[in-house]
Amino acid sequence: MSTFNVKAFGTPAADADLKEIQIQRREVKENDIEIDILYCGVCHSDLHTARNEWGGTIYPNVPGHEIVGKITKVGSNVTKFKVGDLAGVGCLVDSCRTCESCKEGLEQFCEVGSTGTYNSKDKHLNQQTFGGYSEKIVVDQDFVLSIPENLDLAATAPLLCAGITTYSPLRHWKVGPGKKVGIVGIGGLGHMGVKIAKAMGAEVVVITTSSSKFEDAMRLGADKVILSSDPQQMKENAGSLHFILDCVSADHDINSYINLLKRDGNLTLVGAPENPLPVAAFSLIGKRRSFSGSLIGGIKETQEMLDFCAKHNITSDIEMISIQDINKAYERLLKSDVKYRFVIDMSTLKN
Amino acid sequence: MSTFNVKAFGTPAADADLKEIQIQRREVKENDIEIDILYCGVCHSDLHTARNEWGGTIYPNVPGHEIVGKITKVGSNVTKFKVGDLAGVGCLVDSCRTCESCKEGLEQFCEVGSTGTYNSKDKHLNQQTFGGYSEKIVVDQDFVLSIPENLDLAATAPLLCAGITTYSPLRHWKVGPGKKVGIVGIGGLGHMGVKIAKAMGAEVVVITTSSSKFEDAMRLGADKVILSSDPQQMKENAGSLHFILDCVSADHDINSYINLLKRDGNLTLVGAPENPLPVAAFSLIGKRRSFSGSLIGGIKETQEMLDFCAKHNITSDIEMISIQDINKAYERLLKSDVKYRFVIDMSTLKN
Repeated sequence: MSTFNVKAFGTPAADADLKEIQIQRREVKENDIEIDILYCGVCHSDLHTARNEWGGTIYPNVPGHEIVGKITKVGSNVTKFKVGDLAGVGCLVDSCRTCESCKEGLEQFCEVGSTGTYNSKDKHLNQQTFGGYSEKIVVDQDFVLSIPENLDLAATAPLLCAGITTYSPLRHWKVGPGKKVGIVGIGGLGHMGVKIAKAMGAEVVVITTSSSKFEDAMRLGADKVILSSDPQQMKENAGSLHFILDCVSADHDINSYINLLKRDGNLTLVGAPENPLPVAAFSLIGKRRSFSGSLIGGIKETQEMLDFCAKHNITSDIEMISIQDINKAYERLLKSDVKYRFVIDMSTLKN
Repeated sequence: MSTFNVKAFGTPAADADLKEIQIQRREVKENDIEIDILYCGVCHSDLHTARNEWGGTIYPNVPGHEIVGKITKVGSNVTKFKVGDLAGVGCLVDSCRTCESCKEGLEQFCEVGSTGTYNSKDKHLNQQTFGGYSEKIVVDQDFVLSIPENLDLAATAPLLCAGITTYSPLRHWKVGPGKKVGIVGIGGLGHMGVKIAKAMGAEVVVITTSSSKFEDAMRLGADKVILSSDPQQMKENAGSLHFILDCVSADHDINSYINLLKRDGNLTLVGAPENPLPVAAFSLIGKRRSFSGSLIGGIKETQEMLDFCAKHNITSDIEMISIQDINKAYERLLKSDVKYRFVIDMSTLKN
């Protein structure tokens, strides 16, 4: 298969910094789209994968799955997009397309195994997939998203992962008017959760360990903030929420949050703490509560989320960086020192 | 308020055996029903409460909330029952009746606090409520169940707690034809879960630590048995079940069971392990699974369950005992040495 070289930023080993490397992309085939990458968001998963913290990283690794750019080529069968259109790529670039989950538009749960935007087996070339920290990407049209023209393009990039990761469970658990929704953890995911839940019409309650987040939570759209380090506030608000979106990736006392749920309430985890979370049986049994997880979203729902964000004028709060600053950004990410998402200006890779 | 004395079996202290005592019951008021207790099932909760293992036991304690008997008196406003009818009393004898949960018929989740059949504050007399290990009980008609005439009466008693505790989550999570349902822990609760899930039309898979339970599981109605101590069997059956009813009260590795669930599957806990159960985030996130609890059932649903059992000829597998053998029965209960529920022949209290 014919390929071409593109510049990328990647890492040759778990303990190495990211640096400029060359990778290969396939030439567009009949169903493919070639995108000139303009911006790429920086997700915690990028860092975990680059450093092999979840295991299984194949090197060199080129992270990045919050990709927006402009279409530069389309294959002969491409009907949904044309050259010059804005386009996006999220966490997935392919899946089996035939299993029950794929047929339901839930490619993230593909039973054969979906193809991640990076660090998956490439179906076309004999290599791993390479992500958005690169000049261009070539993706099957069925996994390309249409990007609304009315939003700030750089601030739209994080919707492709942080946006859909929070939108999907909020929709799945039927958040909307009349529902009181808690958001735990105001970071890259949580700040999107607040904006989206508010736009869905819910009453939004931010639960935070830090009183320094109060003002920002209200600015993002929260109706109320609960300080989780204050036992009195946690007690007063017990049994008050229909749904909680838990965006915390660190170890945390899940029972204290579950206790904020009403009867039949659900807490959904979208962060992925490394250690198992001890759950007290009585926390669940006493009010028939449930504790769930959720994983990004399918392509159809991702497009729905983008259209929803366009309608409600929602983007991520971002700090723009040059690709040359990615290693420094990772260090700051580890300290949660970003409000709330780094986005790489990919033109800096061309320098 | 006028009262009368009845014989009961109860305990004066956490470390004392149960023995014959005298307690007082109120004379029937306009909405009350007096029941001559014929059989009373023995639930794990009886033992936990008698021994103050959950804290908060008020002594003397008279356990028993799987009560069936014959109506001997009715108050002037009672319309749904008449003297001579079979009647049952489960875990609840009252609730606030005005909160959201009560109005929805979910008195077990009464937001003010429902009145348990034993060890709750009695609304009528200045004492704790006393349970079914007694000659008679007087209960408001709204908390009395109608007992089908076609079932073995002694074997029907355990339906009032073990039956509804398993029926309610099976209904709530929409178990029925086309659904593959796992039952973990074949004891007092689990053996009812197998029978009820099967009668609901589901494909029933028993998951047990002990190959000695195989034959019995099939006899109870299971379509298949998975030996949870065999990693190969657990692996082969990963992602195969829509719903799991977890009836285990001891510590157990919940993640190994959660991994048996399909995408969007739910595991509901009805046993109440003392220690928090560590839940791995990836167990939930990877397939959008959920982990829930469930608590007995409301009065309306308990009647629905009894009618369902009457229609499908379902009762508990029981071993009948004399009230004088209750302390020995508790010791055997601790060793799970019963197939599958002790029921007290209450005529032995009259001796």
